[in-house]
Amino acid sequence: MSDQAMTAQDEPQRVVRASERRRRSVSGRGQPTHLVQLPWRRVTNPYPKYEIYSADQIEAIHNTSMRILEELGIELMSASACARMTKAGAQVDRSTMNVRMDRGLVAELVAKAPPTFTIVPRNPEHAVHFGGNDVIFGLVAGPPNVHDRERGRRSGNLNDYRDFIRLAHYFNAIHIIGNQVVAPVELQANTRHLDTYLTNLVYSDLSFHCTSIGRGRATDGARMMAISRGSTMEELAKVPGVTTIISVNSPRRFDEAMADGLTAMAEMRQPICVTPFTLLGAMTPVTLPAALAQQNAEALFGIALAQIISPGTPMVYGSFTSNVDMKSGAPAFGTPENTKANIVSGQLARRYKLPYRTSNPTASNAADAQSVYETEMSLWGSILGGSNLVYHAAGWLEGGLTASYEKLILDIEMLQNMMEFLRPDEVNDETLGFEAIRRVPTGGHFFGDPHTLERYERAFYQPLLSDWRQYENWADAGAVDASARATEIWKRALKEYVEPPMDKAIRDELDAYVAKRREEIGSGEP
Amino acid sequence: MSDQAMTAQDEPQRVVRASERRRRSVSGRGQPTHLVQLPWRRVTNPYPKYEIYSADQIEAIHNTSMRILEELGIELMSASACARMTKAGAQVDRSTMNVRMDRGLVAELVAKAPPTFTIVPRNPEHAVHFGGNDVIFGLVAGPPNVHDRERGRRSGNLNDYRDFIRLAHYFNAIHIIGNQVVAPVELQANTRHLDTYLTNLVYSDLSFHCTSIGRGRATDGARMMAISRGSTMEELAKVPGVTTIISVNSPRRFDEAMADGLTAMAEMRQPICVTPFTLLGAMTPVTLPAALAQQNAEALFGIALAQIISPGTPMVYGSFTSNVDMKSGAPAFGTPENTKANIVSGQLARRYKLPYRTSNPTASNAADAQSVYETEMSLWGSILGGSNLVYHAAGWLEGGLTASYEKLILDIEMLQNMMEFLRPDEVNDETLGFEAIRRVPTGGHFFGDPHTLERYERAFYQPLLSDWRQYENWADAGAVDASARATEIWKRALKEYVEPPMDKAIRDELDAYVAKRREEIGSGEP
Repeated sequence: MSDQAMTAQDEPQRVVRASERRRRSVSGRGQPTHLVQLPWRRVTNPYPKYEIYSADQIEAIHNTSMRILEELGIELMSASACARMTKAGAQVDRSTMNVRMDRGLVAELVAKAPPTFTIVPRNPEHAVHFGGNDVIFGLVAGPPNVHDRERGRRSGNLNDYRDFIRLAHYFNAIHIIGNQVVAPVELQANTRHLDTYLTNLVYSDLSFHCTSIGRGRATDGARMMAISRGSTMEELAKVPGVTTIISVNSPRRFDEAMADGLTAMAEMRQPICVTPFTLLGAMTPVTLPAALAQQNAEALFGIALAQIISPGTPMVYGSFTSNVDMKSGAPAFGTPENTKANIVSGQLARRYKLPYRTSNPTASNAADAQSVYETEMSLWGSILGGSNLVYHAAGWLEGGLTASYEKLILDIEMLQNMMEFLRPDEVNDETLGFEAIRRVPTGGHFFGDPHTLERYERAFYQPLLSDWRQYENWADAGAVDASARATEIWKRALKEYVEPPMDKAIRDELDAYVAKRREEIGSGEP
Repeated sequence: MSDQAMTAQDEPQRVVRASERRRRSVSGRGQPTHLVQLPWRRVTNPYPKYEIYSADQIEAIHNTSMRILEELGIELMSASACARMTKAGAQVDRSTMNVRMDRGLVAELVAKAPPTFTIVPRNPEHAVHFGGNDVIFGLVAGPPNVHDRERGRRSGNLNDYRDFIRLAHYFNAIHIIGNQVVAPVELQANTRHLDTYLTNLVYSDLSFHCTSIGRGRATDGARMMAISRGSTMEELAKVPGVTTIISVNSPRRFDEAMADGLTAMAEMRQPICVTPFTLLGAMTPVTLPAALAQQNAEALFGIALAQIISPGTPMVYGSFTSNVDMKSGAPAFGTPENTKANIVSGQLARRYKLPYRTSNPTASNAADAQSVYETEMSLWGSILGGSNLVYHAAGWLEGGLTASYEKLILDIEMLQNMMEFLRPDEVNDETLGFEAIRRVPTGGHFFGDPHTLERYERAFYQPLLSDWRQYENWADAGAVDASARATEIWKRALKEYVEPPMDKAIRDELDAYVAKRREEIGSGEP
């Protein structure tokens, strides 16, 4: 056939794809009654790591980072953490809380973190693996607002929070829940984390991130995960169940709440991802090598601190380096600079043998074409960089100010496409198909060939969202574009969602824990 | 700052970006009066080639291709081409026109094609370079229909054809015009190519693809390019000015018109891209290794034929391998299978030291989110595969059945993002910015630092289409999404477009050539 769309005369018999898809059943009229999605799968990246900076360039960034730590230092706004730093051999200025470390000490501490580890939630089948070739996709975390095409943009609230957790549980492409998919702002601020942890645990069986603003929130998350698993805290220390992100107040500052959260998590030996959030031109210099040198110094500082507190605590090297619009100062995401940062930061993380975290952001205000090309730029940078955790992988909109239902669906489609891209092909006599090529005459087609019939059901990725119908059929059905189809999909997924069973005794224990902590916090305890 | 969108207190002074952008001027009120785009630039890919199949797997595909050529053969529906094949040492069955070649002959012929070459249009500044690390982006080619958001979908026509050529000339990210951006179906079919070539030459100064369905159309394109350059045909043979795509009727068939077009182009020594258009499950087996083995056999066959006709003729190894929807037989593009095919085909093209062509397609019926994620999958596959020519890089919609104005703009934004990603960073003391990091206090910002102020104007990619405003500002301005903004941009580009000057004598000679050929064709000459 010619270099044109295939025409109707080549249409094969209509065939119904079969059962490798999870949650699919067929109604009496032969139509699938459930959405078709990929099965839960441990995603690994079998391809070579992509390197866009030379080994010398990586060493130049490393050396600049070491000079930052040795000569300039980091402000660590916690007296107890400063004291630990002094004891470990760092140079601490007590009046300014400035901490300097020499490169030998940094290397020694960073080397104590394991290269790989596993987090096990209450459903051990939903364990996630960090490091090596593993790739974990996380739900968007942190937006104050929520949006969908029917109800518009509104403040975060617990109802929407719950629906996002249901969707994260429903869609197999989401492996882990981030820190508060949306802030339930109608709830009391100092106990809100208890409500969101309980929602995570009841409406999903995935692992989640604890909020590490201070010691109490981090501890509550770990304890509630332990309860849900039926584990003691000692067992949780051996087999972690939660993780956290420690953000850095770039440039070069760790505030007290974050230092306390990091300390609590390290003491419980729950994994910690240290992520400097750095926008070139704002929190770092405008040049990418400088930004990465600063990011690297900040990330390694946090990792070193955790290793002083509890050597061997699992760590993740976090990168979130993008740029601002220099005309307005507005943050930009999914830019070419962001893509490069995702790739080069992976080169750095591998230099230190640390699991690696990126993000999947966009600055777009709508779940539209812009949101997609920005996300694809971030996502490809993440994958090529060898990211082990793509945080904010699904649902992020508006520079992180809004959790979007439609963007969640667009993202899941993009993640599923990437998962299938990451499935390596077998090359052997069967897949080389010489006999099939021999059988089909010149100018013929392969639809009816046995080689095709034996394989067509599993041969290709079957999309969740993409519409491949002919234009006329698509137009007759209302000419619904992808963002509008996404609305139908999340609504259908919420209908199909089934709450994962939980033992009543465990549910009671969780409720009792929440009630007790609500009372303690109300009376002023941390 | 924390892992959140940057807030207003960090807003820098508003700054106006300066003059590295082409075609930008500032009106009396300080507003840019022209669209901001990247300058014309020779795009090269400085990064490592990505290899997802092992060397052994590539050899297994190569060997299967050689078996196809040795044992099964290709149907070559041209008596004169068959005669040349016989003379060159191939085994030709005269009754079936089946041609078999042994691998030694294939290797010997393919090795005659140069690894790199340059095509020079009437404006030598718009020369394009094939092979090595060069990347060329081509305008969509071949759709029978055209679409924009204001006028809807309609049949191709010369007015729309002309507007697309104007846009291709206007936007620096488009380097070459493909074969008929849209079919002007109101014009007489057998002379339509004269109208489109003339439009290409008058409304742009870029190189273009000739239609190689038969000898006459190919020759007319080359002759008209020679006239526009003021070159003789001998000069054109030494410094090519046009190129063509030879499609294969997969599986394993070259029809007579294509064989004649290839022959004419080879005799004129104008570059030829041989592209089997193969959808897995339809024109090839469902397994990717088999599809690539067949594609490889077909492409090398066409390349060998051209080298028999005129040894040393510049060639391009074309790949256009995607899959069908096995439920409906509908073609699918930008799928994970398409992405893999783009990468592995690059491994094959490099094995034969041939310049490499891919495409940038989507099956979406609208210039929406689906069209973008499918295009990004194709585009990343192209870039990672080391593609030298991304054909259909801008404007393709609906599986190639429609040329879309809005998709053109979405694509140009994606191409520009990729061009900036492909610009390598310098890593040196200046870009490592240690002194800037020293100067800015912990928790401060870099907006006012001299290191920033010296560089901010050229530090980051400035988008054509992306809107990075705060939500409230965007909503107050009408909440216009990216596809709708694209409409404003192509309309503005058409207003800003300036026809490239052409010497009157050359224009007269072109008009005379067209008139003479119209008469000849009308009277039955080829």
